[in-house]
Amino acid sequence: MRRIEHQLYELQARLLEMGALVETAIHDSIRALLDRDEAPARRVIENEARIDRMEIAIDDCAVSLFALNQPTACDMRRLAATVKINNDLERMGDLAAHIAERTLSLIPQAPLPLLDLPQLARLAADMVHESLDALVRHDAELAQRVVLADDEVDRLRDSLYSTLVCSMQENAAAVPWDIHLLFIVRHLERIADHATNIGEDVLYYLRGIDVRHHASVA
Amino acid sequence: MRRIEHQLYELQARLLEMGALVETAIHDSIRALLDRDEAPARRVIENEARIDRMEIAIDDCAVSLFALNQPTACDMRRLAATVKINNDLERMGDLAAHIAERTLSLIPQAPLPLLDLPQLARLAADMVHESLDALVRHDAELAQRVVLADDEVDRLRDSLYSTLVCSMQENAAAVPWDIHLLFIVRHLERIADHATNIGEDVLYYLRGIDVRHHASVA
Repeated sequence: MRRIEHQLYELQARLLEMGALVETAIHDSIRALLDRDEAPARRVIENEARIDRMEIAIDDCAVSLFALNQPTACDMRRLAATVKINNDLERMGDLAAHIAERTLSLIPQAPLPLLDLPQLARLAADMVHESLDALVRHDAELAQRVVLADDEVDRLRDSLYSTLVCSMQENAAAVPWDIHLLFIVRHLERIADHATNIGEDVLYYLRGIDVRHHASVA
Repeated sequence: MRRIEHQLYELQARLLEMGALVETAIHDSIRALLDRDEAPARRVIENEARIDRMEIAIDDCAVSLFALNQPTACDMRRLAATVKINNDLERMGDLAAHIAERTLSLIPQAPLPLLDLPQLARLAADMVHESLDALVRHDAELAQRVVLADDEVDRLRDSLYSTLVCSMQENAAAVPWDIHLLFIVRHLERIADHATNIGEDVLYYLRGIDVRHHASVA
């Protein structure tokens, strides 16, 4: 194994460790919301700084890997994908923390109807998991499935938005809480977007085709 | 001048060209909103694909610069900052397009009170301009000023949110339009966040200190 192979392997292991942390944060933030449980929400907020530190460590590691070796065009693609995925994961960690913060504001209130939120949350979490799985298993088909799942996310979001608008119009007292839900929907949608980015980066890295910005993924 | 110096210089020129496009998009989206003018909003939406293409071209250029040279640790920092700033700019372009889309939904309605929105918009646009200026002029002090301006953005956002919540509670008919405004506030806040990221990346590149994630910038 070339030295750089070994280093790239280690870098990917760290990226997946970061991925596992972020997945836990997403699951915890969703659980806090659906179970009205403060403990996982607080955990997410506490762990955000750890995820931020890990992003920086992985970036630094990628940069010195560039510096100490002479990467081939293929290594380069892999490194570039790593840096981008690292960034997407960090953003997802932030979004999970935003969900956790809004959930902490919602919990003391009377339970709200969650509508399609559990479905949207499950779909977003699945997309995150599958995008990382596609990375580990070098599975272009799975990566593509993640990219395509984004349409279903948009459908669920639109339906949730309409319902929340009606709820706010019918019950002024619920407006502040409905706004929290509105932003939670938006954060879940953004998490799914980042999973889509990871799917696209995996495809880019596997195929050498840049499918970012939703060019054809066929 | 070393060959890589020259290439880095060209790369930065392209990044600044991208910056100029994104600044125009932000200005146009704000102008569309404040002047209730569809033309600049449509321009922003049309130009989004161009910004997306430019991001990819700059990334590719950075990657091949890595591949064809043996960058020093300092070049490396500069390259890493370029890739990150490129990504922030592309996200800002997206956000400007989101603002333009929501503005197109708002224009056919009766004029809404815009509250502190013009102030927030001006502040966000200034931060974008100054963060790019700090990059061009290697001005750490200016970069730091951008990072610190983020607190004022948060203050304006909080005040706008409260006012919008009241408005929705008092007038159910205005809910759909107030939600557009709510998201426009959020998008402006995110644009300011990306300007802050650029400020932090400029500081990182100039000082070799990683001040991302709002560690002390003193």
